[in-house]
This record gives sequence, C-alpha cells and structure tokens, in this order.
Amino acid sequence: MNAMILWSPGQTLAMAEIDMTLPSIGDVYVRLKAAALNKRDYWITKGKYPGLVFPLILGSDGAGIIGDREVIIDPSINWGDNNRHFGPGFKIIGMPDNGTLAEYVKVHEVNLYDKPSHLSWDEAAALPVAGVTAYRSMFTRGKVQKGERMLITGIGGGVATMALLFGVALGIETWVTSSSDEKIEMAIIHGAKGGVNYTKDNWDKNLGQQVNQKFDIVIDGAGSPTFSKLLPLMNSSGRMVIYGGTAGNINDLSPQRIFWKHLDILGSTMGSPDDFRHMVDFVNEYKIKPIISHTFSLDEANEAIALVGRGEQFGKVCISIP
Amino acid sequence: MNAMILWSPGQTLAMAEIDMTLPSIGDVYVRLKAAALNKRDYWITKGKYPGLVFPLILGSDGAGIIGDREVIIDPSINWGDNNRHFGPGFKIIGMPDNGTLAEYVKVHEVNLYDKPSHLSWDEAAALPVAGVTAYRSMFTRGKVQKGERMLITGIGGGVATMALLFGVALGIETWVTSSSDEKIEMAIIHGAKGGVNYTKDNWDKNLGQQVNQKFDIVIDGAGSPTFSKLLPLMNSSGRMVIYGGTAGNINDLSPQRIFWKHLDILGSTMGSPDDFRHMVDFVNEYKIKPIISHTFSLDEANEAIALVGRGEQFGKVCISIP
Repeated sequence: MNAMILWSPGQTLAMAEIDMTLPSIGDVYVRLKAAALNKRDYWITKGKYPGLVFPLILGSDGAGIIGDREVIIDPSINWGDNNRHFGPGFKIIGMPDNGTLAEYVKVHEVNLYDKPSHLSWDEAAALPVAGVTAYRSMFTRGKVQKGERMLITGIGGGVATMALLFGVALGIETWVTSSSDEKIEMAIIHGAKGGVNYTKDNWDKNLGQQVNQKFDIVIDGAGSPTFSKLLPLMNSSGRMVIYGGTAGNINDLSPQRIFWKHLDILGSTMGSPDDFRHMVDFVNEYKIKPIISHTFSLDEANEAIALVGRGEQFGKVCISIP
Repeated sequence: MNAMILWSPGQTLAMAEIDMTLPSIGDVYVRLKAAALNKRDYWITKGKYPGLVFPLILGSDGAGIIGDREVIIDPSINWGDNNRHFGPGFKIIGMPDNGTLAEYVKVHEVNLYDKPSHLSWDEAAALPVAGVTAYRSMFTRGKVQKGERMLITGIGGGVATMALLFGVALGIETWVTSSSDEKIEMAIIHGAKGGVNYTKDNWDKNLGQQVNQKFDIVIDGAGSPTFSKLLPLMNSSGRMVIYGGTAGNINDLSPQRIFWKHLDILGSTMGSPDDFRHMVDFVNEYKIKPIISHTFSLDEANEAIALVGRGEQFGKVCISIP
C-alpha cells in the first residue's frame, strides 16, 4: 500500500509503498477514504514526543470502508476497563502503531464504529479525536447541563470547535476566546454568543462585562497564566476542564478562589470506549457536522501539517485518500 | 455576659461585659463550655479579612449547653439548599456575627447538633470547623475510598490533623508533609505511615521513594509551587483537594500532567448541613477524638491566638469557658 512515511524527526513525510503485514486475530485493515490531522502529528514531525520510533506513519483520525461497512475509527487503543482513566497499555493510533496517512490502517475491530450517515468522508474523518476529546471534557468530566454557560478558550482547533458545536446543539450559551478576531467572528457565525481576544489588555475584565454573568464550565486547551485569570469569571461549583497545554504551565493560580467557589479543575484527554460510543450517538442525534477548515490530498500532507503547526485553521484539517 | 472583644484590628482582645440582645425566632443562646481557634481568628485580629466590622467577638468553634441538652454548633450559617456550594447569604460564626469567645453565643437552632458523648467539652469544641472541613474535603469532594492512599500536606493544623484521624480510622494509608520533623513524628504516633519535611531538598523525590506507590488523594491547605510538585506523585484519577492557601498562589502547574492522568483539583471550604451531619455520625461511629494541642482559659485568648499565628500547634487550640 501507499503511505506517507516520516523517516526521522525534522524531516518531511515522503510517499512510499510499504508491505501490509498479516493482521493478528481481532485486527482488521480499513481501506481509508479520509484522515484528519491533530496538533500531535505536528509535534511528532518535530520530534517533540516521548518514545518515538522511526520510520512511522502519522495520523490518529480516519474513516473508511471494510467490506460493505462504512466506518470511523476510535483512536484510543487499549483504554482498559476503567472509564475514569486509561490503563498502562493505552496508546493512540498513529504512533507507535502506524496511523491513517495511508491507503490502509490496521486496527482492532472493536475500535470500529458505523460512520454517521449524515457525514461526508472528510467530516467523518474529522470526528474521532476532536469529537471524543470534546465529548469527554464537556460531558463525562465537566458534566455540562442545559441552562449553563460555557467558555471555550483558544477557539479554532479541532477540540475547541467541536465543543462549540456540541454546546450550540444543546442550546448552551457558549463564549470563546482567541488571539484572532477573525476566529471569534467565525465562532459567532457557528453559534457562539460572543468572545474576546486574549492578546488585548483587560480581556478578562472585558469578557466579564460582556457576559454580565459568570461561567459554569470552561473548556481549556492552553494552560498558562491566562488560565488563572478565568477564576474570577467562574460561578461557584464551576468546572474548568483542561484537555491541553499548548501555552505552557499555569502560574498565579489562587487557592483561595478555588476553595471559596468549590471549583473543580479537571484533566481530560481522549476518551474511553463508552465516551466514544456516546459521542457518536450524540453526533447522530443532533446531526452535528464537524467544521472542516482545509482539505488536502494525501500527497499534500506536508503542507497540511505545516498549516496545523501554524495554527491557522478554524476546524479540522483533513486529508482525502484516493 | 462576659466576652473577649476585638475593638479594632491589630489590637489584642479585651474582656468586657456586654448586653445579650433578644434572640429572633429560630435563634437561641448557647451557654458555652468551650471554644476552639482557627487560623481565621488570627487573620481577623490582623485585619486581614474582607468586610470586618468592629467591635466583634471572635470564635467559630463552640460547644455548650442549652437547657439540659449538650450541643456542638455547626459554624456554617445560611449555607443554602445546594450541597455543591454555599449560597450568597453564607457566613461563618464569629464574624460578622458574634462568635464563641464568650459565655454565650446566639445561633440558629438548626445549627445545633448533639455533642458526641465520648468527647470532653474541649474535644467537642475542637470538632466543628476542622471536622466538617476535613470531612467534606475527603469524602464529599475527594470521594476517598478504602484501599486508597492519602497524602496530607502541612500536618499540624486542625483540618490536617482531623483528616489524619479520619483516614486512620478508615484504615487508609496516610502520609504527611510538614516543615517540622517533630510534627511528622507526632503524625506517625497518631497513625500516619510516614512523612517528609518539605523544606529539605528533593523532598518530593524522597517521598515518592519512601511510599514506592502513588497517591489517590491529597488534602492540601497550602497551595504554592509546592503543590505542583505533588502531581508526579499522583495516580491516574487522583483527587487533589484544596481547602486553604496559606503558602500563596500555585505556580508551575503542568496542564499535561493534569490531563494525562485525568486528575481532579477540587476546591472545598467548610461544609453543608449534610456534610456536618455526616461528619458527626462518622465521629460517633468511629469514636474519633480531635487532637488537642493546647488549652487556654477565656481570659488567656490572646496568648492562644498568638500561638495559632505562629503555627506551633499540633491539633486544635481550645479555650475553656468558665
């Protein structure tokens, strides 16, 4: 089969034909129709990930066919029996095991779910990582309820835009932050109530004034001292879910604000098989379509990864596989 | 009645005779037999508390009699209907309303609970604030389970020593940190498995090596960058409950460690009526006796407050009321 191969860190991917090894019992090959990228793929090309073994095939998101069945792939391998956290054998498709930037990917059959019929191939490939991460963050961990008010920081990435769609679908008043006024406008077009640019002075006070109420839940993928500025904007019993840390460590976090409001700061990453199944059910029920920012063909994957690295997308960056 | 009065911040308390105002419907006067101090009382004498109105009577912990009934007082006033957090009318006995460093205190009758019969008056007075704060932190918020491993930071204060007693009573393997080797020894005498002095180099690595396992729950009243060093010592799904912040803001907190282990960082302060009732039941069931560090008489209250300010106690500092 043809695949885009990363031979060593710092290099670009190169198309090559590789052998398909015989699948073990319980494993199957999916003929991929589309893949999608995550920031993780970009970091791996830069060698910034522990335990990298080369050569490898990137890609954690994929949708395709197996026989007559149209499927999407749960990217969480060997989560284990405990819904609360993954076990020691946990890994994500696309490193160390080969990923979806290829014509075929070998996966455990239990990781396959029926592709939601209202989604195109690109939309289906855009769903798994961002969908399950957003779902677990908002529902399993953050226990968001109708009538609550949500803030999504750093709108634009896959998880953040998916959380926006989930919130809007449920009728939850959803606000956003971004370093880009354009992305805030895009978020409003997709149903956000409003947003602020966190690179501007007093963004936190301005956000508080605009909203004129406080938040019940925050979905944050950034960390950094910016996170600490959100505490005064929280309602009592607010949940602040952290699924990423692209902006670095959190500083100036006030214990007094945390205990006085009985806040929860909750870590979440990826999702269990239960999370994935509930996410797919939710997407089917509300006919949610992931936002596609850009689509590239498989041999343009380097261009696509560079775009993800620059963080210019609003929604997912997809890869069509011929 | 006689009471120790704080006339203005920075001053010492002075004994004076004051009038007892007529109680409103639902309120009663308790004839106090003992009170106990909290760090809060010390901060108030220093004027370091918002909304102080002088003169005032300090003291949030008390036990006494009303008619034939021996009672302890739930110090949380007007918690409200939501167990998850207190409502806008919430206050704590002993500022703004008059507290327990007096012969009588006026309280809502619903705040009275039968004094556990196995406790002396001093022990009963030592229970309310520390007991309910430790109980809510460990059980309602931290959801500690038998078979788990607990770390209590800064052992010595009322909440920390009460959490130690609760953990030991349940058979939970409990470790401690302190700036004092002597307090670690005291904790071990009271059932802790061991501890480290956090003022020494590599205390966190030494703790990890001593324990040779990780923690499921942390009870922290300090905050500060020390808190962040605990993250590598946590098991997945660990809960880190923050009930105080005596050492200042938290820095260098890694979002990656939070999300990868699906950690919960949970704020908790005081407790609801449900928490208080469950705490009293628990104390009765396990015949728990709060650790009394020192006992002073009412007219020695200034000496007692100074001791609490210096943090020299191991357990509660009590005030006998003649």
